[in-house]
Amino acid sequence: MINYEALFKISYGLYVVSSGSEEYGNGYISNTVLQVTSDPPRFATCCNKDNHTAGLIKSSGLFAVSVLSQDAGAATIGTFGYKSGKEANKLEKMNVRYGETGVPIVLDDAVAFLECKVSETYDVGTHLMFIGDLVQAEVIDDSLDPLTYLHYRKVKKGVAPKNAPTYIDKSKLEKKPTEQEHARYECPACGYIYDEEKEGVRFEDLPEDWICPLCGSEKDDFVKL
Amino acid sequence: MINYEALFKISYGLYVVSSGSEEYGNGYISNTVLQVTSDPPRFATCCNKDNHTAGLIKSSGLFAVSVLSQDAGAATIGTFGYKSGKEANKLEKMNVRYGETGVPIVLDDAVAFLECKVSETYDVGTHLMFIGDLVQAEVIDDSLDPLTYLHYRKVKKGVAPKNAPTYIDKSKLEKKPTEQEHARYECPACGYIYDEEKEGVRFEDLPEDWICPLCGSEKDDFVKL
Repeated sequence: MINYEALFKISYGLYVVSSGSEEYGNGYISNTVLQVTSDPPRFATCCNKDNHTAGLIKSSGLFAVSVLSQDAGAATIGTFGYKSGKEANKLEKMNVRYGETGVPIVLDDAVAFLECKVSETYDVGTHLMFIGDLVQAEVIDDSLDPLTYLHYRKVKKGVAPKNAPTYIDKSKLEKKPTEQEHARYECPACGYIYDEEKEGVRFEDLPEDWICPLCGSEKDDFVKL
Repeated sequence: MINYEALFKISYGLYVVSSGSEEYGNGYISNTVLQVTSDPPRFATCCNKDNHTAGLIKSSGLFAVSVLSQDAGAATIGTFGYKSGKEANKLEKMNVRYGETGVPIVLDDAVAFLECKVSETYDVGTHLMFIGDLVQAEVIDDSLDPLTYLHYRKVKKGVAPKNAPTYIDKSKLEKKPTEQEHARYECPACGYIYDEEKEGVRFEDLPEDWICPLCGSEKDDFVKL
């Protein structure tokens, strides 16, 4: 028996994983970054095969990891979390530094970053796992707390997009949402839930230029649950 | 340039990873557990090649992950974190359940557990990365918060043992300890620091039967820094 609620007990941080070169780069939000050896310092990150950045990591053999801060805003999370780099150049409006290898590193809302050179790539099914040797590491702002997936889900009310390793089909959860007098509206782009009961304001009473606080989608796009 | 402080910004949980059979099993504390694909639900864990449990995972093709609670006590952390299963049978005094595959699962201080069947093993240098398909998952106590590595380091004052992927040689850190009028004593087994200034009691004034709150080592074993 698999209780999918148990999977939420695994702790993760949230990161912008970026790749490419000074000519063209891309990044996406990942929760799967971990150190695999200390000597040499070596990191792993796991990326959906359909992900645009996965292709860039394969071709350049490079990736950078920006550790997002707990204060990370909707602009950063929305840009890297729910838009594909296939359609938009995500790095255009961001604060980007190029690393020792030339890989783009996103500095917006970053507590620290790691720059890695891929040494191995493993096919783990729907995802690729890239193993990278650490080339450079820097703390950007030591006063900021790193954003965790738990904080993102609990405080920011975020959910994982469909191609994340931790995506969970809601029908698989044992706990069904309880019936409520107040309505709830879901952002189709990022899954953010606007809960009238919690917010104290009916969704229809929000101004027409109200946007999704997580990804910036328009009010009209929201779907009533 | 590598600033090793940046590596502390990566978020991890803390887990007992166990393996073996109903006849003989072992476990150790790991911070490297992550979900790598959602369909099928598949997990990775990274284990030092010298680790006794690594041998058991290789031979049995099984591992279990117990998610430790924030309230996890010195008995559990000390038993699984700093003693080798080569010398002691760690599971003897613990509350163990055997999973659907027969793998031992540690229930002490556990928020939830996962039971996995190894599908791939990758050699990442000093460590092996095991990829396992999820067989069973259960929540043990939903009221408990999972223990994170940050909480372990900040609140419990714990450090990683030498064979952990996240072990950092203190001489590599940029921030050197500041000089203090009060002395600090280190536990040689687990690295716990007794800081006289913070505790308000001189180390020599502690009772002789005082033990390390993290791993249970004796007062006499502590080394003055």
